[in-house]
Amino acid sequence: MDQDQLRVLLEQVRSGETEVDAAIVRMRHLPFEDLGFAKVDHHRALRHGMPEVIFAQGKTPEQVVGIAECLLQNASNVLITRADRDCAALVTEKLAGAEYLSLSRTIRFWRDRTVHGKGTIAVVCAGTSDMPVAEEAQVTAELMGNTVDAIHDIGVAGIHRLMHNRERLTSARVVVVCAGMEGALPSVVGGLVSAPVIAVPTSIGYGASFHGLAALLGMLNSCASNVTVVNIDNGFGAGYVASLINRL
Amino acid sequence: MDQDQLRVLLEQVRSGETEVDAAIVRMRHLPFEDLGFAKVDHHRALRHGMPEVIFAQGKTPEQVVGIAECLLQNASNVLITRADRDCAALVTEKLAGAEYLSLSRTIRFWRDRTVHGKGTIAVVCAGTSDMPVAEEAQVTAELMGNTVDAIHDIGVAGIHRLMHNRERLTSARVVVVCAGMEGALPSVVGGLVSAPVIAVPTSIGYGASFHGLAALLGMLNSCASNVTVVNIDNGFGAGYVASLINRL
Amino acid sequence: MDQDQLRVLLEQVRSGETEVDAAIVRMRHLPFEDLGFAKVDHHRALRHGMPEVIFAQGKTPEQVVGIAECLLQNASNVLITRADRDCAALVTEKLAGAEYLSLSRTIRFWRDRTVHGKGTIAVVCAGTSDMPVAEEAQVTAELMGNTVDAIHDIGVAGIHRLMHNRERLTSARVVVVCAGMEGALPSVVGGLVSAPVIAVPTSIGYGASFHGLAALLGMLNSCASNVTVVNIDNGFGAGYVASLINRL
Amino acid sequence: MDQDQLRVLLEQVRSGETEVDAAIVRMRHLPFEDLGFAKVDHHRALRHGMPEVIFAQGKTPEQVVGIAECLLQNASNVLITRADRDCAALVTEKLAGAEYLSLSRTIRFWRDRTVHGKGTIAVVCAGTSDMPVAEEAQVTAELMGNTVDAIHDIGVAGIHRLMHNRERLTSARVVVVCAGMEGALPSVVGGLVSAPVIAVPTSIGYGASFHGLAALLGMLNSCASNVTVVNIDNGFGAGYVASLINRL
Amino acid sequence: MDQDQLRVLLEQVRSGETEVDAAIVRMRHLPFEDLGFAKVDHHRALRHGMPEVIFAQGKTPEQVVGIAECLLQNASNVLITRADRDCAALVTEKLAGAEYLSLSRTIRFWRDRTVHGKGTIAVVCAGTSDMPVAEEAQVTAELMGNTVDAIHDIGVAGIHRLMHNRERLTSARVVVVCAGMEGALPSVVGGLVSAPVIAVPTSIGYGASFHGLAALLGMLNSCASNVTVVNIDNGFGAGYVASLINRL
Amino acid sequence: MDQDQLRVLLEQVRSGETEVDAAIVRMRHLPFEDLGFAKVDHHRALRHGMPEVIFAQGKTPEQVVGIAECLLQNASNVLITRADRDCAALVTEKLAGAEYLSLSRTIRFWRDRTVHGKGTIAVVCAGTSDMPVAEEAQVTAELMGNTVDAIHDIGVAGIHRLMHNRERLTSARVVVVCAGMEGALPSVVGGLVSAPVIAVPTSIGYGASFHGLAALLGMLNSCASNVTVVNIDNGFGAGYVASLINRL
Amino acid sequence: MDQDQLRVLLEQVRSGETEVDAAIVRMRHLPFEDLGFAKVDHHRALRHGMPEVIFAQGKTPEQVVGIAECLLQNASNVLITRADRDCAALVTEKLAGAEYLSLSRTIRFWRDRTVHGKGTIAVVCAGTSDMPVAEEAQVTAELMGNTVDAIHDIGVAGIHRLMHNRERLTSARVVVVCAGMEGALPSVVGGLVSAPVIAVPTSIGYGASFHGLAALLGMLNSCASNVTVVNIDNGFGAGYVASLINRL
Amino acid sequence: MDQDQLRVLLEQVRSGETEVDAAIVRMRHLPFEDLGFAKVDHHRALRHGMPEVIFAQGKTPEQVVGIAECLLQNASNVLITRADRDCAALVTEKLAGAEYLSLSRTIRFWRDRTVHGKGTIAVVCAGTSDMPVAEEAQVTAELMGNTVDAIHDIGVAGIHRLMHNRERLTSARVVVVCAGMEGALPSVVGGLVSAPVIAVPTSIGYGASFHGLAALLGMLNSCASNVTVVNIDNGFGAGYVASLINRL
Repeated sequence: MDQDQLRVLLEQVRSGETEVDAAIVRMRHLPFEDLGFAKVDHHRALRHGMPEVIFAQGKTPEQVVGIAECLLQNASNVLITRADRDCAALVTEKLAGAEYLSLSRTIRFWRDRTVHGKGTIAVVCAGTSDMPVAEEAQVTAELMGNTVDAIHDIGVAGIHRLMHNRERLTSARVVVVCAGMEGALPSVVGGLVSAPVIAVPTSIGYGASFHGLAALLGMLNSCASNVTVVNIDNGFGAGYVASLINRL
Repeated sequence: MDQDQLRVLLEQVRSGETEVDAAIVRMRHLPFEDLGFAKVDHHRALRHGMPEVIFAQGKTPEQVVGIAECLLQNASNVLITRADRDCAALVTEKLAGAEYLSLSRTIRFWRDRTVHGKGTIAVVCAGTSDMPVAEEAQVTAELMGNTVDAIHDIGVAGIHRLMHNRERLTSARVVVVCAGMEGALPSVVGGLVSAPVIAVPTSIGYGASFHGLAALLGMLNSCASNVTVVNIDNGFGAGYVASLINRL
Repeated sequence: MDQDQLRVLLEQVRSGETEVDAAIVRMRHLPFEDLGFAKVDHHRALRHGMPEVIFAQGKTPEQVVGIAECLLQNASNVLITRADRDCAALVTEKLAGAEYLSLSRTIRFWRDRTVHGKGTIAVVCAGTSDMPVAEEAQVTAELMGNTVDAIHDIGVAGIHRLMHNRERLTSARVVVVCAGMEGALPSVVGGLVSAPVIAVPTSIGYGASFHGLAALLGMLNSCASNVTVVNIDNGFGAGYVASLINRL
Repeated sequence: MDQDQLRVLLEQVRSGETEVDAAIVRMRHLPFEDLGFAKVDHHRALRHGMPEVIFAQGKTPEQVVGIAECLLQNASNVLITRADRDCAALVTEKLAGAEYLSLSRTIRFWRDRTVHGKGTIAVVCAGTSDMPVAEEAQVTAELMGNTVDAIHDIGVAGIHRLMHNRERLTSARVVVVCAGMEGALPSVVGGLVSAPVIAVPTSIGYGASFHGLAALLGMLNSCASNVTVVNIDNGFGAGYVASLINRL
Repeated sequence: MDQDQLRVLLEQVRSGETEVDAAIVRMRHLPFEDLGFAKVDHHRALRHGMPEVIFAQGKTPEQVVGIAECLLQNASNVLITRADRDCAALVTEKLAGAEYLSLSRTIRFWRDRTVHGKGTIAVVCAGTSDMPVAEEAQVTAELMGNTVDAIHDIGVAGIHRLMHNRERLTSARVVVVCAGMEGALPSVVGGLVSAPVIAVPTSIGYGASFHGLAALLGMLNSCASNVTVVNIDNGFGAGYVASLINRL
Repeated sequence: MDQDQLRVLLEQVRSGETEVDAAIVRMRHLPFEDLGFAKVDHHRALRHGMPEVIFAQGKTPEQVVGIAECLLQNASNVLITRADRDCAALVTEKLAGAEYLSLSRTIRFWRDRTVHGKGTIAVVCAGTSDMPVAEEAQVTAELMGNTVDAIHDIGVAGIHRLMHNRERLTSARVVVVCAGMEGALPSVVGGLVSAPVIAVPTSIGYGASFHGLAALLGMLNSCASNVTVVNIDNGFGAGYVASLINRL
Repeated sequence: MDQDQLRVLLEQVRSGETEVDAAIVRMRHLPFEDLGFAKVDHHRALRHGMPEVIFAQGKTPEQVVGIAECLLQNASNVLITRADRDCAALVTEKLAGAEYLSLSRTIRFWRDRTVHGKGTIAVVCAGTSDMPVAEEAQVTAELMGNTVDAIHDIGVAGIHRLMHNRERLTSARVVVVCAGMEGALPSVVGGLVSAPVIAVPTSIGYGASFHGLAALLGMLNSCASNVTVVNIDNGFGAGYVASLINRL
Repeated sequence: MDQDQLRVLLEQVRSGETEVDAAIVRMRHLPFEDLGFAKVDHHRALRHGMPEVIFAQGKTPEQVVGIAECLLQNASNVLITRADRDCAALVTEKLAGAEYLSLSRTIRFWRDRTVHGKGTIAVVCAGTSDMPVAEEAQVTAELMGNTVDAIHDIGVAGIHRLMHNRERLTSARVVVVCAGMEGALPSVVGGLVSAPVIAVPTSIGYGASFHGLAALLGMLNSCASNVTVVNIDNGFGAGYVASLINRL
């Protein structure tokens, strides 16, 4: 409810068209509805002009289907992240247009393919094992209307491969870098490009990687100034912010 | 040394204008020079089109003056961060144009005030104690050619203050949010705006804040999708990335 | 055994009605009995005037049934928390009046529904995934004789939903707030209400949430002064303390 | 601005007494003013009906004096916590009515001594070294209109002392327990009383106490159900919540 | 090989009874033999005069049987800890005299029941869930020739139960205390008795117990001076050291 | 107040010698007195038959003198630990018989030099830097009536030195081992002796020693079964428990 | 592409044999090829003169087979680490010459058995449970052309066994030491030998071992100067570096 | 005492030249002497053929002088690390030949400058702030008879500088890499060279660097296989091991 609507409402109060009590009620009426287990916020979709997203982890397949159904009434594109096979099976069975990408465990409803991004988003990953997270970032960015250039398996210990892809990296408007283990790739990429770099630590590794903590700390301490960081394995968040930036 | 320069060089080799050995030498000649204690990289300044920055912590005042002197020969604007009073005293004595901002412990040489940013960068802080970090972000963004809107002391426990500043927040092209303690402000701001939010955890707090760890973890786990995070107290990094985004 | 009983006993010693040795024995006779594997403390129930509670995790279904059986002889209401399906199956089969609430994995024997609380306890949760913990708090508070107002899925990134429920929040005498991820909701709710707020961090999240640690630290560092905290996922504890407060 | 005020304002709009634009402006006018470095929120004082509090750590003595001066215009009682000697010197010099309690490093302006609390708040500490934190809790509770019963130095390894004070403990309406090292006292006190217990871990200890972490974890894992926890050394928070509860 | 044996050997060298090279070989011949996967050290058994112990975790059932078989040739009593059901099945099938105690997952060969301990060892546990660890301590102490007084389920939140058992506690020569969650019991017991107390943190708890870390830290910071600590869930170690002390 | 005294008291009640109310009062009269800032517990001294101990850290020199003065009225030997130079200066000035040992920062009043221990306590330290902690253990044990054999600077990387002292180690009745850095010495000593070993991690080290955490974890995970552990730098605790054991 | 090749290429440019554009293309042509999911870097194999290695964890059996197939075209020896049974089944079915070592979960293709190492590499482990990690180190070193002397089950608590193997240890040119729990073995071995010692913490242990953290910290803080450390359970890395050193 | 000496001794026993008791005494006589506060181990110097090293931290200047004096009688070269200015002042005053290098806080006695190393040791550091640690490594390696090539300030965010030094890096026989912050440099260097790389995390950084923990974890998780790690800021250890390797 923005200021213009408020002005209209107050004019109606002034003119007697609307009663005071009714005005109070309407002022309090915010644009969301109640499903019982989750308040679906169409408002947010409008505000951000973005697809709707459901985080499936910790929800039953039935809950996911229920929320998705509701969202699909208003949103063109819907993204479901962290969906296991059971969830995917039910969603694809019940709801038309669902595609399951098993590597990243995402389900997408990609009904509006308009390109909103002004340039290319590069999504880079350090190793084969980081690909699920990278794909989550890629799917998110594509669903939000971006052209994505996916560059896989260019770790810092083989600096040649990285240099080989330098042109693709420097031509991107935003770069997403996914890496586990020591998480050094964002620093090196950050030094090569002048675009903003969004670093995604992955939980890939063992022992003293502590499920992604080593990579997370490495990225937060990056000596490259153009690096910001999201949560461990949060490919979605990286793709989302990259899309916001690419629309500017 | 970009591809065009390489082509010119190879043409010279072909034409015999340049000897093979000389060509090898020139190919290896990268644009930095050696001060003995630190390789000053003018190249980076060119690449990013940005002011030069010196991280003063762990360097002697003499080292800082030496590096700054060298940088000022090529760069219009130079920023020195984490400068204590001794460092500031020597720098302002030795080098013309130095201004010391004691709250954020930054020294700036602001010789070129061209505005490069396309919109406003909002720099928000949760409490009075977070102001040093916020000022570091503001100084950085200003020196990089941005208009900054500084909004101080709007914590989440007084949501009215935050709502009061909603319009200023939503009109920014990028938002930097500095907060210590529980670090919840970026989540709330992130829900109010559709711009990218760069969250800076500060080391403000006590006990279980563990010198900013609580705020850092809170921001990494933000339920708002448009939030990325930099290191604890890294106002510079936030101002830097915000500037990169605001130029897009 | 309170002071009055002691006085009576001593009078009996004086009068010769009770032998010295018998008095010593009776003084030592505290009101609990021995089941072999767990000393059931009826005394505690009397002391607190509260239902009996069994923490089922780490106990076999047989042990839980045994303890419950014993407790039901003296207590009107019995609550079993952290009961998995096997435990619930055996308890509901063996003991009359058992109800299993699978979301929160609680079993309740609700035989005395007297209301003891003077006002309403609001039980708030940030996301759908936090509902199991919120339900544990709600079931506990209800079994202890309180009217509960359950408000679900009002996260800090959608501040509108929160504001929409403001009246319900401010009309509660105590507020329980369950949140995972960054755990920011108690701070915002704490700023809106003047009642005591009991914050329950949940283990919902991934990566740098570290199984609820991020939410826990966030809540402990809350900038709202009316917030206290219980253990991660401890919905029972929050409901219990809220009930104590609501009886005052 | 509550609903009644809103209703009055809307009636004025209806009657034409107030212009629409003026109404919008007044709706947005929230009750706080701007000091430049900190937005003082009188509103919060009204909302909670509580004294104003200044957290002095990280603020200059001049800032503290400035904020206190402003607050004293509206609030009867003002509490300044974490004030070092320099801060205390300036405040007591500049502002009439200031008392400095050096043990807890608090400054109080106690102009209204009305008792609001319905019962007694017991403030217990485990050892002599925990007394600064206990005093902070006591001063806070007293300034908020409560009668405090301070019980010092009753650690769990001398259970006799604790039992000796049992009556004082059980006669309190709320109990605040401050303890460092293993932080076991709240569990034992919690088992003895039926009142809500607010546990304050202190940073007292060495080695594996990790500056209060051991005590904090101990309290969060308390086997007594009536215990909630605040941040390490947060005597103020404990006194504040205890006061809220004691007013119910 | 002690000094007496060395002297005898040297006398033989002197007398020519033993060749120099043979003497060198014998000097190097230490009393252990090689099973291929584990060097069984009979020597240690002799040195300590104690039963042999096998830590079964991380070993195959076949390996456990092999080691046990070898040990049983020299030792009267053999204890196998951390044995799962598969391991227990094979051991009890293959080796005569094996008893499996499923609660503590220990297998014992108790062929020599001589009492070596001079007094009683009290083994105390805080809750029903701590019983497996307590039983491991009890079985160890019994197998090493001690009389054990097992006292279960006396947590600090029900101080009456603890006081009720005070006499049994004070009559023990050594006390082992097992507790999870906040791990406060050793401090309280330590204050009641003058015997050495060996504290065993258990992994019982959830959330901020961090698998026994809270209890471990609590015990290490105990304010009772007579408390030492062993590893989380290390009932064996506690029973072992208690036995050593009880032989003194 | 033990059972015999209780019986006498009850006989007096029976005979009319003592009034009921007086009996209640006497039952509640526990043997400690109140200094205002610390309840001095003579009872504990009696119970343990041990010297009194004051932990000076966090107490003012004046408080330490006050407590010591009170204790010296009843106890023969008094030990003050963690006393800095200021504290030592005041104590030695005000109280006769005080000796300050600056290495371990302990003050001792050693008026009764009766030997209570049945054998020798070996106090071992790994490096020169661990000597302050070792001395605290030694002073404690000596003041409690033990003969101490101090063995310094025998680290695990020079196993020859350790073997050289093997006889002294094996002839001790209890062994205290102080070590920082990797904390491996207790494991090696534990394997050489059959006596109980009390391990004291010290905060000596740097980097990943994390102020003694590495040594603490190493000792808790010792593969030698006869090792128990006390807090980091807790030489006092180790000396205290060793003394208890050596009296058995 | 080394300097000689560059010189030849430039000579060709000079002579006109190669066009400028073709030269640029060839300069950029680095020696790796693209499998789609992983860029196989033959270049690295050439550079290091070492077998190729595949880290199977987090890769599907199909991916592992694909990468292995490609590598086997150029490399004599290929090592696959962290291969579970499914992976091993497919690899041994599809690719000739594969041997699966189930203890260490490694698959080797050992086609070239040339010895490159100048001396022996000793691979030592502290306990039977550490053998999988030790075997990974051994297999790696053997595949890289080294003679390995495997010494198992010599823990620090049985120093005799260690001394018994002293000659074998001192005759090695490099020593790899694998140990879990307190991780003390590398320090003791480091003190006995003058060769470089590579320490491998293993995740063997329980409770406060925190999955190898205790061993890792112990090794990093080793008081022996000749010790360096690799990641927890990283037998491969230790074997690899030992091989590099043994070739020198 | 090696086997040959033992044989000679035994022959003497046989021939009657040496008494049995004298032989036992001589067997036990190991080559170290006792200074009271530290057992100086000349033996170790012989064994390793290396200079003697004193870790000055935690020792008084007088202790350091005492130990150094003793060592200088037998060793040509002596190195003192972690020496503050007071220590350096006393050592250089009292002992001839001492040189203080204030950056790395080392004192060296470099009397024998024989070169023992077969190649060059490269000592690399990422930033100017890492130079103290790098210098400690360099001084150590030089004192142990190595030629060192020091390469400073080549961070991963400026990959050009690194490539510029590639030849120097690849021509070293061993490489020591010191880096703070994210600690990524060893991975990149490790990928460029085939020599063993010893990584030294430094405590340089702030916030989430946690005093070198981030760099340490990054290095332990390096994706380059030729990297091993020493403790945070342990330049000495790295220089020491590099020297051992370079002698092979």
